[in-house]
Amino acid sequence: MSYKHLSTSSDHASLISSYDTYLFDCDGVLWSGDEVIAGAKEVLQRLRASGKSIIFVTNNATKSRRAYLKKFQSLGIQADVSEIFSSAYASAVYLKHVLKLPEDRKVYVLGMEGIQEELEDVGLKWCGGTSPEDNVFLPTLDFTSLLQPEVIDGKVGAVLCGFDMHMSYIKLAKAYKHITRAGATSGSPQAGESGGACHFILTNDDSTFPAKGGPWPGAGSLSAPLVFSSKRTPTIIGKPHQHMLDCIEAVKPFDKSRALFVGDRLDTDIAFANKGGIKSLLVLTGISTKAEIDADGAEVVPDYLTQSLGDLLAAFQ
Amino acid sequence: MSYKHLSTSSDHASLISSYDTYLFDCDGVLWSGDEVIAGAKEVLQRLRASGKSIIFVTNNATKSRRAYLKKFQSLGIQADVSEIFSSAYASAVYLKHVLKLPEDRKVYVLGMEGIQEELEDVGLKWCGGTSPEDNVFLPTLDFTSLLQPEVIDGKVGAVLCGFDMHMSYIKLAKAYKHITRAGATSGSPQAGESGGACHFILTNDDSTFPAKGGPWPGAGSLSAPLVFSSKRTPTIIGKPHQHMLDCIEAVKPFDKSRALFVGDRLDTDIAFANKGGIKSLLVLTGISTKAEIDADGAEVVPDYLTQSLGDLLAAFQ
Repeated sequence: MSYKHLSTSSDHASLISSYDTYLFDCDGVLWSGDEVIAGAKEVLQRLRASGKSIIFVTNNATKSRRAYLKKFQSLGIQADVSEIFSSAYASAVYLKHVLKLPEDRKVYVLGMEGIQEELEDVGLKWCGGTSPEDNVFLPTLDFTSLLQPEVIDGKVGAVLCGFDMHMSYIKLAKAYKHITRAGATSGSPQAGESGGACHFILTNDDSTFPAKGGPWPGAGSLSAPLVFSSKRTPTIIGKPHQHMLDCIEAVKPFDKSRALFVGDRLDTDIAFANKGGIKSLLVLTGISTKAEIDADGAEVVPDYLTQSLGDLLAAFQ
Repeated sequence: MSYKHLSTSSDHASLISSYDTYLFDCDGVLWSGDEVIAGAKEVLQRLRASGKSIIFVTNNATKSRRAYLKKFQSLGIQADVSEIFSSAYASAVYLKHVLKLPEDRKVYVLGMEGIQEELEDVGLKWCGGTSPEDNVFLPTLDFTSLLQPEVIDGKVGAVLCGFDMHMSYIKLAKAYKHITRAGATSGSPQAGESGGACHFILTNDDSTFPAKGGPWPGAGSLSAPLVFSSKRTPTIIGKPHQHMLDCIEAVKPFDKSRALFVGDRLDTDIAFANKGGIKSLLVLTGISTKAEIDADGAEVVPDYLTQSLGDLLAAFQ
């Protein structure tokens, strides 16, 4: 497989004339930590001014879309909530509209506020997550508190696992009991019932999480204990998996043949675009390197390569 | 493969006459939770009275051998510390005598008191584990405390991961940094150095932990985040892996051709004996069932089967 390395103004101009919808990964593409990538803000402005559609696609499930919007605002980047698709939001949409989890069933959360707010937004109940009783350390080798009636809540119809800096043995133990109970894999949870089927969903399976001093262990690593202990295969929502794309297309339809995905990671962003039939542009301001796509036997290769999103400014000059 | 189902007194007597050393898994064989398996105590007494050697082999790394001895005593079962081999003890022996970790290097522990006490017993320093600073929840999305100088201690030369009900993101993050630092896989840590090579050891990889109300997520599940995030292959000490056997043979040599392993789990106990060239007896008072070894294509099959350890009393009557 080969890619086009964009090097001249006309390369960039030709790219912009070929696509109407631009999907952006955020961290490593628009910003790095708390610093905007040089030129990124201006490129987005020029795209908007040219009537292009913009969509932000992030696996970061720690924040709700509304909280994520504040990050855009704090960095001075124009965005609207309707343009933001996160794995937390896509997971909530998937549980509500694809799996049709009944309103009286709860979602047991291994995760943070972002997941909880998105579940609430689609009208789903949750437990676990940031609840104080699940954010403590159990006494050593004392399982007594887990054996009380209704501690393993029979109304839970799904376990949703994402990045959680307050991961605890309590949460792992409760989630394990939900996804391994009798009938857990027997289909879909029914309204009015207790126990029975229980879905097992991961927001994303990134092995690491990008933050200051990172990488640090990521959502995929934090859900590994549940996958290993339950021996179940979870449904994974975030990039490179296609449920994220299904969610975007359902909420904000676009012409895939005129769309370009811009990302910094081969294993999530570019693989996501390739699988989804969307052209892709790799930028080198994040995780992946040119050497990786130039290597013999490279399995995931973008359609285009440029150093930085800021390079696209050349197309508008 | 086929096994002999012991059903008559002469079957049992013939078994006892064939072996001189008896290796026992504990939970599910000698006891279940806090209850002794009927007849188990008496069988052990008869074996001792007949001059047989007894060895206890457990993957449970939560207690030191000394603390484990108290469990034997509380249940009225005769035992000596020199007869007890746990995955915590075998891990400490492996780090000290096989890997020869220099005395000035530390072991970063994801685990509980049992591991720490065994490390101290062989003269190795540890950090992490039950240290108060690593048993707290970090503020949400705030990695600041992990970025302070020497928080990621360069004197760590090994990460040892076992069952830990106080597993925390701090411990996962620190352990991840140790096993992925520059040179981490470059050989053996050297005395006097900081950084460089760092071993990655698991006490055992049991997916679940047996306790009241269990099974619950086990040591193998709790170490899964580190395996997934670091992409390293750890050295695994406990059954069915053979480092445990190496440790027993080094400390307490015995004639393998005259030894019998008694266990309740095919995937740990019986697989351990089969790989190690030791005959095995499966009892049905724990995890595995007769149906599993009778199934077409059963991969792990014992040499002998009996319902309960207590059945062996028949051999002495």
